[in-house]
Amino acid sequence: MGSRVVVIGGDAAGMTVASGVRRRLGEDDEVVVLERGTWTSYSACGIPYWIAGEVDTAEALVARSPEQHRRNGIDLRMGTEVTAIDPRRRTLSVRGGDPVSYDRLVIATGAEPVRPDLPGIDGRGIHGVQSLDDGQAVLDSLADDPQHVVVVGSGYIGLEMAEACVVRGFDTTVVERSPNVMPIIEPALGQQVADAMRRRGIHLRTGVDVTGFTLDDSGRVTGVETADGTLPADVVILGLGVAARSGLASDAGLPTGVKGGIVVDDRQRVEGFAEIWAAGDCVVTIDRVTGEPIHLPLGTHANKQGMVAADGIAADLLGEEPRLSFPGVVQTAITKFCSLEISRTGLDAQQARDAGLDPVVVSIETTNFAGYMPGAGMMTVVMVADRITRRLLGAQIVGAEDAALRIDVAATALAAGMTVDAVVMLDLAYAPPFSSVWSPIQVAARAAVKALAG
Amino acid sequence: MGSRVVVIGGDAAGMTVASGVRRRLGEDDEVVVLERGTWTSYSACGIPYWIAGEVDTAEALVARSPEQHRRNGIDLRMGTEVTAIDPRRRTLSVRGGDPVSYDRLVIATGAEPVRPDLPGIDGRGIHGVQSLDDGQAVLDSLADDPQHVVVVGSGYIGLEMAEACVVRGFDTTVVERSPNVMPIIEPALGQQVADAMRRRGIHLRTGVDVTGFTLDDSGRVTGVETADGTLPADVVILGLGVAARSGLASDAGLPTGVKGGIVVDDRQRVEGFAEIWAAGDCVVTIDRVTGEPIHLPLGTHANKQGMVAADGIAADLLGEEPRLSFPGVVQTAITKFCSLEISRTGLDAQQARDAGLDPVVVSIETTNFAGYMPGAGMMTVVMVADRITRRLLGAQIVGAEDAALRIDVAATALAAGMTVDAVVMLDLAYAPPFSSVWSPIQVAARAAVKALAG
Repeated sequence: MGSRVVVIGGDAAGMTVASGVRRRLGEDDEVVVLERGTWTSYSACGIPYWIAGEVDTAEALVARSPEQHRRNGIDLRMGTEVTAIDPRRRTLSVRGGDPVSYDRLVIATGAEPVRPDLPGIDGRGIHGVQSLDDGQAVLDSLADDPQHVVVVGSGYIGLEMAEACVVRGFDTTVVERSPNVMPIIEPALGQQVADAMRRRGIHLRTGVDVTGFTLDDSGRVTGVETADGTLPADVVILGLGVAARSGLASDAGLPTGVKGGIVVDDRQRVEGFAEIWAAGDCVVTIDRVTGEPIHLPLGTHANKQGMVAADGIAADLLGEEPRLSFPGVVQTAITKFCSLEISRTGLDAQQARDAGLDPVVVSIETTNFAGYMPGAGMMTVVMVADRITRRLLGAQIVGAEDAALRIDVAATALAAGMTVDAVVMLDLAYAPPFSSVWSPIQVAARAAVKALAG
Repeated sequence: MGSRVVVIGGDAAGMTVASGVRRRLGEDDEVVVLERGTWTSYSACGIPYWIAGEVDTAEALVARSPEQHRRNGIDLRMGTEVTAIDPRRRTLSVRGGDPVSYDRLVIATGAEPVRPDLPGIDGRGIHGVQSLDDGQAVLDSLADDPQHVVVVGSGYIGLEMAEACVVRGFDTTVVERSPNVMPIIEPALGQQVADAMRRRGIHLRTGVDVTGFTLDDSGRVTGVETADGTLPADVVILGLGVAARSGLASDAGLPTGVKGGIVVDDRQRVEGFAEIWAAGDCVVTIDRVTGEPIHLPLGTHANKQGMVAADGIAADLLGEEPRLSFPGVVQTAITKFCSLEISRTGLDAQQARDAGLDPVVVSIETTNFAGYMPGAGMMTVVMVADRITRRLLGAQIVGAEDAALRIDVAATALAAGMTVDAVVMLDLAYAPPFSSVWSPIQVAARAAVKALAG
């Protein structure tokens, strides 16, 4: 008699666990996935490019369809919503269906867009952007040819959606509560992004709090209310981040932490629940720089956590030692706005201070390849280092072509706990079409070393 | 009474030492640089782009002119050739001039193109490419409108020079002794480069040994002799690598090693000679992966070694502890051929075996950004890992736009001694315009993990 592994949620994390477990277990064992929606294994990060028309169909964003998963031996049940978990009886309640029992459970319920509790927030035409269904709803709203699109929030999703709307020819306004766009990067870099947004014809309103939404008689949004007055809006896109979708877990008594994320160990096992794992946007992870818990919903982490959970469950059922553990994240993120590339990793100055560290912050400008080569563009690199340990704490880049991916060097150095002195001595690639003799990250590291001496 | 620091050689390493020492020492101290040529601080790596016409003048490749260095307080003597070092008397002999004494000496004599001892090798029109004067000589030869250019060797310089000649419209043949182009990368990747070269109209002759050069009565080259017959050639460019220019040092009894490089410690101090430092293309350094000595002449290393030497000399004279040391290299290299980007770091499979390791080698193909985005190009990543320790040993990339710089992640991971398992768990940047959810280096690392299990 085999075991039954049940996974709640059929996106990146859930299907990675299901596929991984399926490969390791025997034919007697069952792998069941319960997905309440209609899609599996899709790229939520691709939604803005679908909205912009660069990607033709939602299907193009699907890495693996339900049929493909079923062919791999996974018992995938679409349109199946779990309403409760009973960890004592190892049973799930299912809306309109029979309970499903499990031997090992995986919670991969993802995240949902933050919808602030404001008057009118439930009006038609106000969209979060997290699932393909959300994306389709935005496309449907845009098909009505709106006069004014307002994007609330200027983080990565806000920025990417604003560009998509402008590409589509819509009058687009971005409203940001903070005085700077992209509060996730340093204000001086945010200013470069703001300039690029304005050049692209986006109306930008920073330092403006949204207080509610005006709706017409049919319940459709007509405006975004702010302290500065009402902005006309036929379509509103919420780019205020996401929160863990962990109600099922917390209702069942499972531990939750930062932003509602489920608390797991480094094998993705839920703390205190030996038969339950969780992975992806619904969990809390660890920031490798501070060692503190953090909620960082991103597909890259979901995939890795899914691998780790699959390994842990298979090892548990097979009586083996698990081989994988998830080391946490360093807050790496990247995006492109028009031709401007934007990336970050690690802590910014404020995060470093909040973590009780004494940061040194430097900012340098350099070319994206040898200055004497035709067409060399500029990039700005901000670097944060710890005054006491000289450890690299974080980096941010805003610049032209080929700028942003250089953040990966800093992300790798952060994982290794390198000092800025060690970063200076790295053997990084150099040829005139790619960089100056000192790679931009090293130019910044040298500035950091200088600042540490001063 | 101050000290006198004398530097032999005014390019990257030498001028970096001179500038660094100058900043640290007092007004009583002298910093003298003796340069036999007419240029200082230039980018030798930029020469192919100057030959191609992408860079207008030699001056554009000069980072800092003699005048600029002199304004910084450096006693820079151009056209001054040192003929002998007397370490016991701390004196240098100078061609046609008075001896120069020193308290601390820096040897930064660079490297010279390998000129194999073949019949006709000294004919006119046969050029190595290392200095700006070499570059000018090539330009002068090309100005004679040659019928046939032959490039001997298909390493980075050979490839870049061949492209420059084709860009200029010359009939160009590359002759390579090895069966594959770019022996520094794996044969399967070399094949991609060979295909790109042929598409670009370059005649490629691999597995062909050059046995000599035919010259006309005036001593000008007319052909390249091979076992397969004679290739017509009005201009020949030697791309056979460089050797340390260390005759001065070895004549003075200083220790030399791999490819004639001067043997130094990790502070760039010459082994056994407490008053002499050496840096740049003329020294032996350490491969961080194998721990073995290696000669790896590149501007990036020259700059870092120059910083380290300057710190060591200043500390020595000021009675302080040196702060910097040079940790060695990981053999990172990168180039672009037409739109093909090529990079490598660490050990290839053969180098790993030669080092007594048991390498696992994998090769993967992936897109340079999310596969559903328009215009996604392909890249091939080869990864080498150690079967016993699971440590990353090396990586190579050939691919389209944005491919090659990703090698820097592997270079950083090598410096940190990471396992391929740790590389899989790195938090690297992800957004659809930049990569799939698994960064190419991680796709390769996952393949390596799989191969290690198999």
